[in-house]
Amino acid sequence: MRHLLDFQGWSRKEVEDLFETARLMQEVLARPVKKVPALQGFTVATVFFEPSTRTRISFELAARRMSADVVSFSAASSSLEKGESYKDTLLTLEAMGVDAYVIRADAAGVPHQATRWVRGAVINGGDGRRAHPTQALLDAFTLLEALGSLEGRKIAIVGDILHSRVARSNAELLPLLGAEVWCAGPPTLLPERLPNVRLTPDLEEALKEADAVMALRLQKERMAAGLLPSLPEYVALYQITEERLRKAKPHAVLLHPGPMNRDVEVEGTLADSERSLVNRQVQNGVAVRMAVLYHLLVGRKA
Amino acid sequence: MRHLLDFQGWSRKEVEDLFETARLMQEVLARPVKKVPALQGFTVATVFFEPSTRTRISFELAARRMSADVVSFSAASSSLEKGESYKDTLLTLEAMGVDAYVIRADAAGVPHQATRWVRGAVINGGDGRRAHPTQALLDAFTLLEALGSLEGRKIAIVGDILHSRVARSNAELLPLLGAEVWCAGPPTLLPERLPNVRLTPDLEEALKEADAVMALRLQKERMAAGLLPSLPEYVALYQITEERLRKAKPHAVLLHPGPMNRDVEVEGTLADSERSLVNRQVQNGVAVRMAVLYHLLVGRKA
Amino acid sequence: MRHLLDFQGWSRKEVEDLFETARLMQEVLARPVKKVPALQGFTVATVFFEPSTRTRISFELAARRMSADVVSFSAASSSLEKGESYKDTLLTLEAMGVDAYVIRADAAGVPHQATRWVRGAVINGGDGRRAHPTQALLDAFTLLEALGSLEGRKIAIVGDILHSRVARSNAELLPLLGAEVWCAGPPTLLPERLPNVRLTPDLEEALKEADAVMALRLQKERMAAGLLPSLPEYVALYQITEERLRKAKPHAVLLHPGPMNRDVEVEGTLADSERSLVNRQVQNGVAVRMAVLYHLLVGRKA
Repeated sequence: MRHLLDFQGWSRKEVEDLFETARLMQEVLARPVKKVPALQGFTVATVFFEPSTRTRISFELAARRMSADVVSFSAASSSLEKGESYKDTLLTLEAMGVDAYVIRADAAGVPHQATRWVRGAVINGGDGRRAHPTQALLDAFTLLEALGSLEGRKIAIVGDILHSRVARSNAELLPLLGAEVWCAGPPTLLPERLPNVRLTPDLEEALKEADAVMALRLQKERMAAGLLPSLPEYVALYQITEERLRKAKPHAVLLHPGPMNRDVEVEGTLADSERSLVNRQVQNGVAVRMAVLYHLLVGRKA
Repeated sequence: MRHLLDFQGWSRKEVEDLFETARLMQEVLARPVKKVPALQGFTVATVFFEPSTRTRISFELAARRMSADVVSFSAASSSLEKGESYKDTLLTLEAMGVDAYVIRADAAGVPHQATRWVRGAVINGGDGRRAHPTQALLDAFTLLEALGSLEGRKIAIVGDILHSRVARSNAELLPLLGAEVWCAGPPTLLPERLPNVRLTPDLEEALKEADAVMALRLQKERMAAGLLPSLPEYVALYQITEERLRKAKPHAVLLHPGPMNRDVEVEGTLADSERSLVNRQVQNGVAVRMAVLYHLLVGRKA
Repeated sequence: MRHLLDFQGWSRKEVEDLFETARLMQEVLARPVKKVPALQGFTVATVFFEPSTRTRISFELAARRMSADVVSFSAASSSLEKGESYKDTLLTLEAMGVDAYVIRADAAGVPHQATRWVRGAVINGGDGRRAHPTQALLDAFTLLEALGSLEGRKIAIVGDILHSRVARSNAELLPLLGAEVWCAGPPTLLPERLPNVRLTPDLEEALKEADAVMALRLQKERMAAGLLPSLPEYVALYQITEERLRKAKPHAVLLHPGPMNRDVEVEGTLADSERSLVNRQVQNGVAVRMAVLYHLLVGRKA
């Protein structure tokens, strides 16, 4: 792979190879000195046109644990004239010797465009509602750890599917690994269609016999926009509770991309229970991002 | 020690051990290549819910001089929902592999709570009015350099005692080392009581025969709040001047935690004189923070 | 040299020595592992009282490629009380062990003052309208690469000369290397005089037989201030177009300090053509800044 934009054109083999590297990276992270010289002399830029401390720090640590240099560029999109200025920023960083760009943007498509501008590797760190592929990779990696295989597994994604790049990327990746993906949410927050995915407003239908449930973060601005009647109504109909999780398989696990609105998307006690893999997702995020950077920077040279 | 929150339960021996390490760190900092691999592979996070460039950079340099990786998280407290979100932020950093957290918060008690959430070492980088222990450590360390011993020494702390975490931490630490602490300030800016400390609105009484004077930074918002009549009145009654310092011992030295409002808390000529240890405090701050990180990260493993 | 403030008192020999080091740094940057231990144990602070991501990242990368530690201090000038607080900030950084300061300020003269306050090396990263010497150095270095020698070369600088520190620094440096500098722009944006330079409102006169053209960035706030009638009028009279560039020598090259307002200062197709050295300028910026840091930090010790 030359870039990581989404999972168009990816094979199951490529995902499995990447995960094998991520498992090696987990071993590095378990050592007393959790650092390797794999990317010494490489420079990774985090280019965030939309703020996200968590994702930025995860990529920063992934790069530093492999001894890469990291520079951070952040700018409110509003302060940029769109289009040409994204290009100008990236060409400037390329001229300064950057090898890989982690790009987060509120406009869909910016990372794709970037691949036409720079020779370095582009990693989509989340673009609009479109894709957030490293989140989906860490989700899938965490699910594989918990479930052994995704073949024939039923995964329910719950919440604001319409606006969610996390849902879209998981809807691309999980079926590639053999899973059956259901998306459930309020009718106003469901897209009309999503390839490879069953859409339903009926939470119970989605949870029934599920092997895993992924609750999405609810953006409170959706209510202002009239897309959601009220928070109590959302909670009443779509919150993942211990009670509701009884519809799922007995071993069913819970994921959430974070940061969680406690007692909104997920019942607090469930979020703190052993079924919740939320912290494991964050932990695997560093290993998975190390693997992505390694494949893109060392793999593409080979 | 597992954490550095305040000086509850500390022994004089523990402080002296820490200062012995800080003296070794001073030697490292005096070398041509002022860097050691002591914390290679460790990750230190500065988690600032209240801005402070000086303290953040001091900790960053302390960590880097020992070859640790550093990540910075900063957020206006206002943008966080209190309580649960502090926890969420810290659990996320822990899952990413952070080993020590330097936490600055405008709400007292956040670092204490943090020790219940994370397994890593927590360093209080200043919480509300409560405590700022690394500041008190660097103050005490600097006083020891200047005075040899604190046994029986009289130290006057002057200014807004009521709102000062620096005063509170010094009031805990300095008596532990044998010093007699006096706190002087306008009656409206004195707490009703402070353990181990003599409180007085009479500056002259506090300065009399003192071995050292520590002027505190005056927050100008106190006047808006009606706690101070006017800046000229404060200056007239509580500014530390060369004239007033004649009440103190001939060798008496001046400290200030910075940044100083020149010609408010301290007469400008005095601030620039040889009696002022203000820059030495900043310099010792790096060595003392190196020692704290070293004891917490390497010491707790042993 | 002990500091880099401007080119007062510089000899041609000193510039040529610096460029020889910059050429060695280019070789480092062309290696697979673009990193040398030259500044291990040194600390470089970027102290930006005016924001500039590009210049800050360029210096950061220059320092890191030589294994220095970097700390970043940034503050809106407005939040600083002028004068004493610049000093306080720098003395604090010095006490923390900083060896070199890259200072950017909207007030002219701050870097000069800084040399009276700190013992470390001061690099002017741009101060008001006064000077931006590393930009001029990278411009001259890039021109030398393209033209072989600047002896007798005609260089046209075009745009808002009055407010431009880039123009001022180039007007000092380029004649030192034998070039003849012309500055052209709207009469309201020309200074009354500029030493060593020919000033003209007539673009054609400046471009005629020129070996290189440097277009300056147009600050759109100039129009609000009534100094420019309208953008279309500026474009009509002063935009560098392929057509207009025919007045210059056939080999004439185009420079721009960036970020460019496309189709304002320069015609878009020309900006993307082979004659444009804009990306090469950015690339050389890192090598030139590495040379500056090396000469100041290692050279001054020798």
